[in-house]
Amino acid sequence: MRPETPLLDRINTPKDLRDVKRDDLQRVADELRAEMISAVSVTGGHFGAGLGVVELTVALHYVFNTPEDRLIWDVGHQAYPHKILTGRRDRIRSIRQGGGLSPFTKRSESEYDPFGAGHSSTSISAALGMAVANKLADKPGKAIAVIGDGAMSAGMAYEAMNNAYEAGNRLIVILNDNDMSIAPAVGSMSAYLARILSSRSFLSFREFGKKLIAKLPKPLAVTARRAEEYARGIATGGTLFDELGFYYVGPIDGHNMEHLLPVLENVRDADEGPILVHVVTEKGRGHPFEAAHVEKYHAVPQFDVVTGEQKKSAPKAPSYTNVFAKALIAAAEKDDKIVAITAAMPSGTGLDKFAAQFPDRSFDVGIAEQHAVTFAAGLATEGYKPFCAIYSTFLQRAYDQVVHDAAVQKLPVRFMIDRAGLVGADGPTHAGSFDVGFLTNLPGMVVMAAADEAELVNMVATAATIDDRPSAVRYPRGEGVGVALPEVPEILEIGKGRIVREGSKIAILSLGTRLAEALKAADELEARGLSTTVADARFAKPLDHALIRDLAASHDLLITIEEGSIGGFGAHVMDFLAEEGILDGNLKVRAMKLPDTFQDHDKPETMYADAGLDAAGIVSTVLKAMGRNDLGQSAAEAASA
Amino acid sequence: MRPETPLLDRINTPKDLRDVKRDDLQRVADELRAEMISAVSVTGGHFGAGLGVVELTVALHYVFNTPEDRLIWDVGHQAYPHKILTGRRDRIRSIRQGGGLSPFTKRSESEYDPFGAGHSSTSISAALGMAVANKLADKPGKAIAVIGDGAMSAGMAYEAMNNAYEAGNRLIVILNDNDMSIAPAVGSMSAYLARILSSRSFLSFREFGKKLIAKLPKPLAVTARRAEEYARGIATGGTLFDELGFYYVGPIDGHNMEHLLPVLENVRDADEGPILVHVVTEKGRGHPFEAAHVEKYHAVPQFDVVTGEQKKSAPKAPSYTNVFAKALIAAAEKDDKIVAITAAMPSGTGLDKFAAQFPDRSFDVGIAEQHAVTFAAGLATEGYKPFCAIYSTFLQRAYDQVVHDAAVQKLPVRFMIDRAGLVGADGPTHAGSFDVGFLTNLPGMVVMAAADEAELVNMVATAATIDDRPSAVRYPRGEGVGVALPEVPEILEIGKGRIVREGSKIAILSLGTRLAEALKAADELEARGLSTTVADARFAKPLDHALIRDLAASHDLLITIEEGSIGGFGAHVMDFLAEEGILDGNLKVRAMKLPDTFQDHDKPETMYADAGLDAAGIVSTVLKAMGRNDLGQSAAEAASA
Repeated sequence: MRPETPLLDRINTPKDLRDVKRDDLQRVADELRAEMISAVSVTGGHFGAGLGVVELTVALHYVFNTPEDRLIWDVGHQAYPHKILTGRRDRIRSIRQGGGLSPFTKRSESEYDPFGAGHSSTSISAALGMAVANKLADKPGKAIAVIGDGAMSAGMAYEAMNNAYEAGNRLIVILNDNDMSIAPAVGSMSAYLARILSSRSFLSFREFGKKLIAKLPKPLAVTARRAEEYARGIATGGTLFDELGFYYVGPIDGHNMEHLLPVLENVRDADEGPILVHVVTEKGRGHPFEAAHVEKYHAVPQFDVVTGEQKKSAPKAPSYTNVFAKALIAAAEKDDKIVAITAAMPSGTGLDKFAAQFPDRSFDVGIAEQHAVTFAAGLATEGYKPFCAIYSTFLQRAYDQVVHDAAVQKLPVRFMIDRAGLVGADGPTHAGSFDVGFLTNLPGMVVMAAADEAELVNMVATAATIDDRPSAVRYPRGEGVGVALPEVPEILEIGKGRIVREGSKIAILSLGTRLAEALKAADELEARGLSTTVADARFAKPLDHALIRDLAASHDLLITIEEGSIGGFGAHVMDFLAEEGILDGNLKVRAMKLPDTFQDHDKPETMYADAGLDAAGIVSTVLKAMGRNDLGQSAAEAASA
Repeated sequence: MRPETPLLDRINTPKDLRDVKRDDLQRVADELRAEMISAVSVTGGHFGAGLGVVELTVALHYVFNTPEDRLIWDVGHQAYPHKILTGRRDRIRSIRQGGGLSPFTKRSESEYDPFGAGHSSTSISAALGMAVANKLADKPGKAIAVIGDGAMSAGMAYEAMNNAYEAGNRLIVILNDNDMSIAPAVGSMSAYLARILSSRSFLSFREFGKKLIAKLPKPLAVTARRAEEYARGIATGGTLFDELGFYYVGPIDGHNMEHLLPVLENVRDADEGPILVHVVTEKGRGHPFEAAHVEKYHAVPQFDVVTGEQKKSAPKAPSYTNVFAKALIAAAEKDDKIVAITAAMPSGTGLDKFAAQFPDRSFDVGIAEQHAVTFAAGLATEGYKPFCAIYSTFLQRAYDQVVHDAAVQKLPVRFMIDRAGLVGADGPTHAGSFDVGFLTNLPGMVVMAAADEAELVNMVATAATIDDRPSAVRYPRGEGVGVALPEVPEILEIGKGRIVREGSKIAILSLGTRLAEALKAADELEARGLSTTVADARFAKPLDHALIRDLAASHDLLITIEEGSIGGFGAHVMDFLAEEGILDGNLKVRAMKLPDTFQDHDKPETMYADAGLDAAGIVSTVLKAMGRNDLGQSAAEAASA
């Protein structure tokens, strides 16, 4: 049942919004909130963040001249209300689904999305680029970055703030302080924001009217004022943001339209800048089931809009994340040198469970992957065994630290890479496509990929034993395949794979969880007369040279398959074969990998099928390589049949 | 002529230093400075940074119990005095030379180097890891990070500060404020530090004695004091560092032993922490030729210790850096949309020349590669043509931004990748080994590598025309080969290579500046009866499929060669050949690339020879692949000869 939204129904774009009477804007916000709750109950998705910025979204589009003024939502997961207001209401119930709207902002989706996102803390840098472009072109447009307090823990937000002076008054940063990023906020910045809030009362319209207008730079005030005076005058004293060159304005009640509108209008018209507006919001505002379970509602599956019951299908097997967490806890119970590090993803990585049992040995550093890795390297120098759990896509943020601090120094940091491979609804910004490539080219690294959840248990235990160099274990999002978990984990021999199925003509060498599809493909190939061996490489580095030599020597075709981009496992196998001269002869080789595109969001199984990385894709690749038709017949056989 | 250093001669390790009379420490510092000047005049190398911290180095080793207390020099290029004091004086004149000391700190070199470096801004994270390890193990040791003000612009330093509260008083950060990183300081943090200095007088011993001791926490003061009071009391008011959870102490005159020693002793014994000590030093302190040319003396070649004349050999050809700068300026003269971005390397990248001509279109963002890339992406959204010049090794810092902000969004940021390939004296931390791998796996990227300086001119002009996706041009450190530069640059066809030399048996497909060695190798192979084609791929992505097919079809052996790690150009070529079925037959392929090790510093040509990537290495690879002996004879020929 859809909510009644008479005002919202008349708004297709922000231009329509600007025709609404000012006194009706709160009602627009109320309808927008109801619409968003209704939509997410159908689609699932990021939820609390959007509900928290409903009033802010309305106020920003009302006050600023979007899309000419550039409005950039950091991360983009709070942009559902923004999408509804910017011509995408008709598709809002398609969000996160194949062919539907992206769960984040996306340039190709709307001119109102001037910068796409997915990862956090990019908005100030991007807005600064746009603001400086306007300055160079002598255009009046503003660039407004809306960034959460959690995203402020990332170094790149600081790097951007350190350079914000370049933009003058064309840059406005809205600090959306909801004191709850995905996990509880950590770090000194978060504590600092809390201190600001506790020591200052909200800036209201009346205060602006009576006390502050006179201190604002022209055209707001008649007298021109020095920047420094402005900075000191408008807030109740110099803040850290003032020290970094911003004019700090705030705090503002982000749910009070009568506070938001005049403050944003004044900020819009200010002569000096950059300006940081500190807005306080409540994540999940307005949802009856929200307050009790804030973290649970960060991103949700579909739910019943009345009871709040989440419609999650019953899992068949434990998730890889949970299996990892339990395996690490088991290892840590026996080894008090094991410590764990997460960058703002305690629940997503399963380390919340570890932290519950080992609070002193667990570290959530906030959205700060660079620091997480080098901090772990520091712990490793002192004989600790750091397990650094970071999603594949976010580990990209710390690549230099992996190279320079872990690999060059051979420090045994264990990288636990969740969300490896395609991730589904979160789409291309979150795909874990590149880690095998960017890790296997590093001298000395050990790179493992789990074929199933039992293998993951073994690999976590194996990583704990690797003390002389960095190592990594990658595993996908979602549920395992349902195999029994080992009671006592097996310590794997480094660089040794395993034969899973014996055959004689075709060899499929799989890295990671495509193993199940490889086995299915082997059955189908067998039925077509192509006897097929399936091996699980386990290690992308070091390679199992003996295994590869054997497979090459005893089969006509060697196929590698992996859940990653070109330049990874298959490239290493092929390079080895070439170097050994094994390719000089008639062996056929093919490397199956992710396609050379950024695949749009969809169900992971659909995405893998599109990529040709399922059983059907493997069969088709084999048949083509072997010069067979779909029945497995050679040209001669087909002709005589 | 070596200076006379009677006190220094008695000091082999910091333990000896601690036996020196306190009143003699300034003399130790004076002798240490003289020794360092003498040594660098012989070896060349980083210079100004070390001279600036001579007193600080002496004071730190005197006050702290190194190596049990961990002393971590950020970047490590200021650690020459530290190396002299920590048992490496006898090898200090070997620095930067093959087999000699590293120009940075290095764990394998000394127990006094608890963390290696090379890239900036890692020290606080590493120190925090060590301090937390001590806390977990209930050990008393301190971890002291010494970090320059320039390095404070990097996000990871901020990420670490945001987490420093984890360490309590075990973490001490020495902010070495010399107001001159490699380039003039930029950014608000730098301006902020200058404001602190201008508003406060140095903390001296007398001030400590009279005014502040009473305010320090026990055991310094009898009464226990709250952390907040301490933070407010010791300095002249809350600083940004206090807001981030540190106790700020300073500013301190970093050349005055009578100031340094008591302050550091008090900090060492403080009950609360973490503490940040703001020390002001003069880069290049004490060198007669220093003051006039600070940037010139950041890192120097050998020089005459009396006249200061630098013994640089006359260049045969312009450096790639200079060729790039001129090419970009030429392009920018015709196209006012071209803008340039550097991350604290204006001189190193040649963008200082661009900035001199186009000050408004040039941006030095400080040591902030992440911001640099996303800022560039923001500029690109507005129709500007950003050229983002970052060394290969430092681009690792911005990998996620390259993926998430440029590649996923197909924004035409032009990455100008200087110092690609091996860099010589700076060693493994600075090698540009991985960029081809980590860029070519990104969908849509264009990746070029210049074979010589004329090609670089063409590629800069070509990049300016690529408006629908990100592109990259990589080129090495050092001088070109001396070819004439095109007066009018040629706009290269995207994804097209060129045949440089025609042959019939062997094909060498080169990416980058190994082309000259490939041509030499071809001559030698020809002399051994192996007719050799040499092609310049120009593009690592997209590949020139037609060229590769032709080479494969008309030669017995196809060799790729590149100045990068496995997983790069060669991997892409081989993958293409496999996918096309071309490897199914008898074509031989080999991919020549950097070895799977972090090569220690040496002369680049020596390193490439060790890697087998010179003409001799190519010849040897070809002969082996072809089953020939060193004379080019097959086994049968050799037997009958």
